Amino acid sequence: MAQHLDDANRKHVENFGDKGKLVLSPPSKKLIVVTCMDARIDTSSAFGLNEGEAHVIRNAGGRVQDSLRSIIVSQRLLATNEIAVVQHTDCGMLTFKNPDLQGILAEQHPEEKDKIDSIDFLPIPNLEGGVREDVQWLKEHPLVLKETVVTGWVYDVKTGKVSQVA
Amino acid sequence: MAQHLDDANRKHVENFGDKGKLVLSPPSKKLIVVTCMDARIDTSSAFGLNEGEAHVIRNAGGRVQDSLRSIIVSQRLLATNEIAVVQHTDCGMLTFKNPDLQGILAEQHPEEKDKIDSIDFLPIPNLEGGVREDVQWLKEHPLVLKETVVTGWVYDVKTGKVSQVA
Repeated sequence: MAQHLDDANRKHVENFGDKGKLVLSPPSKKLIVVTCMDARIDTSSAFGLNEGEAHVIRNAGGRVQDSLRSIIVSQRLLATNEIAVVQHTDCGMLTFKNPDLQGILAEQHPEEKDKIDSIDFLPIPNLEGGVREDVQWLKEHPLVLKETVVTGWVYDVKTGKVSQVA
Repeated sequence: MAQHLDDANRKHVENFGDKGKLVLSPPSKKLIVVTCMDARIDTSSAFGLNEGEAHVIRNAGGRVQDSLRSIIVSQRLLATNEIAVVQHTDCGMLTFKNPDLQGILAEQHPEEKDKIDSIDFLPIPNLEGGVREDVQWLKEHPLVLKETVVTGWVYDVKTGKVSQVA
């Protein structure tokens, strides 16, 4: 198991070229992409991102609420001024509600019930609505820089195409 | 600005091939990679991940504490059983402490001081220590499945190489 990453990394090292010259600095597109952890999304290919161009935040659903820490770090320390929220069709987060997952967990860990019930898993009631809600949340958050351009997108896992919805 | 993603996505759609056949299912490697949002990391290339193989969680530093929601969703709904934590050399999270960033924010938003002081930005005191701390945190967390294989790695942004440290 543990050698997976070593093995999988070998070709990358051989072909690394002059990418090692990139330093810690503001991403050249001044862009943050927030998207889902879904295994079908290759952010570099899907969003045409070369190394050095954008910060990429990924989590279950591509929700912004638990991305806030990272967004603040990106904006205040590395000068990003645009955020693209990209959620996607056929997302697992569209398939359940909080009580469903909380119930599964509480059954297996009854001693953790209070902790479990306090976790909002941020499921998405409907796709475009989820994107719009997250874009709005960012636009209204007092700690997200006011001048930030925030856009919302849906990525279609059947075609690979992004469409702007907010 | 807003058309960036549309434009950048065009080639991806043209070359999408049969990737649209991938469905919502457990990632074939049963793997979660937790890594940094840093613009220099192309996770697909660096970790040799093809579409459908792994969930990828990214945030400032590649910290696990605010990845918990996503990890639970991944394990309980999509059956992943291995987590690789990958932090990297020259990370911005090595360059500050909480009071530094809290101070910058509080100066600009004095009315939000209490909220700001309650945010742990999860800076990393030292690289290998941060990785080991996060691996241990996952191993001890009651809501991370006990049988999970958790490994810790450092990605060298100068060479592209990963090295296992936990």
